[in-house]
Amino acid sequence: MTYRKLQAAALEANLDLKKFGLVIFTWGNVSVRKDEVVAIKPSGVSYDVMKKKDIVIVDLEGRIVEGKLRPSVDLPTHLELYRKFPEIGSIVHTHSPFATAWAQKGRAIPVYGTTHADYFFGEVPCGRFLFEDEMDEYEKNTGKVIIETIGDGNPLAVPGCILQGHGVFAWGKDPKSAVHNAVVLEEIAKMAFYTEAIPGKNIRLPEYILNKHYSRKHGKNATYGQR
Amino acid sequence: MTYRKLQAAALEANLDLKKFGLVIFTWGNVSVRKDEVVAIKPSGVSYDVMKKKDIVIVDLEGRIVEGKLRPSVDLPTHLELYRKFPEIGSIVHTHSPFATAWAQKGRAIPVYGTTHADYFFGEVPCGRFLFEDEMDEYEKNTGKVIIETIGDGNPLAVPGCILQGHGVFAWGKDPKSAVHNAVVLEEIAKMAFYTEAIPGKNIRLPEYILNKHYSRKHGKNATYGQR
Amino acid sequence: MTYRKLQAAALEANLDLKKFGLVIFTWGNVSVRKDEVVAIKPSGVSYDVMKKKDIVIVDLEGRIVEGKLRPSVDLPTHLELYRKFPEIGSIVHTHSPFATAWAQKGRAIPVYGTTHADYFFGEVPCGRFLFEDEMDEYEKNTGKVIIETIGDGNPLAVPGCILQGHGVFAWGKDPKSAVHNAVVLEEIAKMAFYTEAIPGKNIRLPEYILNKHYSRKHGKNATYGQR
Amino acid sequence: MTYRKLQAAALEANLDLKKFGLVIFTWGNVSVRKDEVVAIKPSGVSYDVMKKKDIVIVDLEGRIVEGKLRPSVDLPTHLELYRKFPEIGSIVHTHSPFATAWAQKGRAIPVYGTTHADYFFGEVPCGRFLFEDEMDEYEKNTGKVIIETIGDGNPLAVPGCILQGHGVFAWGKDPKSAVHNAVVLEEIAKMAFYTEAIPGKNIRLPEYILNKHYSRKHGKNATYGQR
Repeated sequence: MTYRKLQAAALEANLDLKKFGLVIFTWGNVSVRKDEVVAIKPSGVSYDVMKKKDIVIVDLEGRIVEGKLRPSVDLPTHLELYRKFPEIGSIVHTHSPFATAWAQKGRAIPVYGTTHADYFFGEVPCGRFLFEDEMDEYEKNTGKVIIETIGDGNPLAVPGCILQGHGVFAWGKDPKSAVHNAVVLEEIAKMAFYTEAIPGKNIRLPEYILNKHYSRKHGKNATYGQR
Repeated sequence: MTYRKLQAAALEANLDLKKFGLVIFTWGNVSVRKDEVVAIKPSGVSYDVMKKKDIVIVDLEGRIVEGKLRPSVDLPTHLELYRKFPEIGSIVHTHSPFATAWAQKGRAIPVYGTTHADYFFGEVPCGRFLFEDEMDEYEKNTGKVIIETIGDGNPLAVPGCILQGHGVFAWGKDPKSAVHNAVVLEEIAKMAFYTEAIPGKNIRLPEYILNKHYSRKHGKNATYGQR
Repeated sequence: MTYRKLQAAALEANLDLKKFGLVIFTWGNVSVRKDEVVAIKPSGVSYDVMKKKDIVIVDLEGRIVEGKLRPSVDLPTHLELYRKFPEIGSIVHTHSPFATAWAQKGRAIPVYGTTHADYFFGEVPCGRFLFEDEMDEYEKNTGKVIIETIGDGNPLAVPGCILQGHGVFAWGKDPKSAVHNAVVLEEIAKMAFYTEAIPGKNIRLPEYILNKHYSRKHGKNATYGQR
Repeated sequence: MTYRKLQAAALEANLDLKKFGLVIFTWGNVSVRKDEVVAIKPSGVSYDVMKKKDIVIVDLEGRIVEGKLRPSVDLPTHLELYRKFPEIGSIVHTHSPFATAWAQKGRAIPVYGTTHADYFFGEVPCGRFLFEDEMDEYEKNTGKVIIETIGDGNPLAVPGCILQGHGVFAWGKDPKSAVHNAVVLEEIAKMAFYTEAIPGKNIRLPEYILNKHYSRKHGKNATYGQR
């Protein structure tokens, strides 16, 4: 994949954030990784005027390889994840409102239904606040907190998390699926919000239904979609 | 009705789900029945690219009669209902957010107003979780739970239900009315949600007003609409 | 005003219900009165296909004067109000969701802010359920309950009400202001809903601010708008 | 800047209120200040028909310098702020629903997340009701209450407030940033509403993260955006 194609893919994914209603103004960014380089949105540039050539390409240490603008301030968070998880091909950051509300509450999003189970194999975890002595390398340490939050599992089984008092990070094997997962995360955050707001007992989806639904769409025995 | 016409009707009804804001991505499906065959959405195909010829036609046992793609994984649920209720001509499945929240809570949607009474002659029932030993034929057993939930009444008097931890199934005598009922179900789910969220006592619509409103629109004494 | 002009005004007002997002499908209607005749939406005709000539004109006793279609089933409610209040020139009926939720709760909408006070000089009252022995002339008795709910005041000072378990009736001196008031009623119903949902004490707008805001926009000392 | 340019800037900013969904009908206004004059929306004129020449230009005492229409009734509130704070170049007034709900509740909007911290360096304060003896010069006294609410700090550090039982005032160094801040204020009001509605303990953003996020975007050490 050439740099041009990588920039085009990153631009399209960034514009998709707006199309799907996940962001207002410049409140979000998508990066796309290809081998040892990462394409990311420039900092503070409006989605309305962003061009393919504005997308910045950096190496995994954050050195600019292509592009004249400054990359998103959140770049070190993205790089921390890419260096740790080779299976992640794209990362999305948003402040989409329902998911951010759960983040502001400091609560993981429980698995209340099959909509959730179709995409996230378990609750959407909520990472802790950064400590005061982590402020110096704030963005890099945000990445470390995400890694700590994911734990040792497969990062594509639960392809996103929320961070306390902050917002959403979601990812996928490519930009289409990363953006898709970010949209799903907001939708299930909304449904879980409504669910808890309805008077009555909150009941988690039984484990065996979570397993069934997730495996309909994922893994070698998946029955969903076309072959 | 030719297969072409059946496919066209099914395509239009599936696209209507998107038009009415009931689904995102591929989170829903509509089937249309004509005598001994059923036309249904192919599995995992985006509404944006779906063509008439992509609609799969099967017989009531699920054997493909026309079409090259794999049908929706939810097909066995639809077929279970068609085999049981000859009066059902079309079935819609969605994860529309307010109705799904009631489903995730495991609560039937109470009759709080005449908006509800105009279309559903009683509460929208909520079917139980499937048991663990029903996982093997998950989609078929989902149909059985719906039938168990409807009970012995006329399935067109309460033309839809929700399923615990899952989502919405709605139906009608034809695809227009099935989609219409799915839209209504989401709207009354939203209104019932707001109603219970307002502080104060929840008061059901008196039975005699439910009767009055439902019979204004349904049955031989209906006064609503043009003749 | 000719019948054609009256039909045109009624058509435009009915289409405005959709434009302002107050109705889906055919869930609402507007009538316009001119002296001894009333133009009203036909029953069950979709907003998408409604034409000027479909608007039905009746006299104040409901006898058809012009038009081939059957009038809205809610016509007797409208006529009851027109016969009682000569100052009302147009009536709107909707099931707009937030206002309907207050109606389903059976609670008047309290005056929590100046947005409310700019248009409604006091709380939006909630009329009672009809009694069982009022079912026979249901629509006419609905009008009687609205009149009972308004009381002896000026109907244009609080230009709308909600009806328990049902929905919204709003009105004005002409169709523009009637639709405007229906939009405002939904907006203040939404804001009052949010207000009560925020934790803390609910505090009504002081009477002297209600007076101030209402009189900025209404009456001979109004300072709002152009002369 | 000529009067024409000032009128154009004010018109665009007023139309942006509608574009961003902050207002319906004429429920809002923007003024723009340049040295000793202020351009403001005319009273009660619909956004749909407003022209550049309809924008009224007044001096800081409210005397009309240019324009044939009457200025917004809220003009004295704007002028009170402009006279006090030379750093304010534009003021926005709206009744946007979530922020107005907090205002109707009489509660400041707490800092629950970095979305808030990126723009408002502390909670969004809520000004008190005006007293009965302040009704005579209602709009001017509204400005005095805003000044009392802001206190002695830099008005651009917390560029907006809500007023009990009323709505929103936001501001900025120019019309783009004033409208931007009004949009942000509504978005963080929405997120704070959702946050408190989720069951569990409400946790404010730690002071050191508020400092970090605000200073990423503001002040001489800002790292956000392009140079």
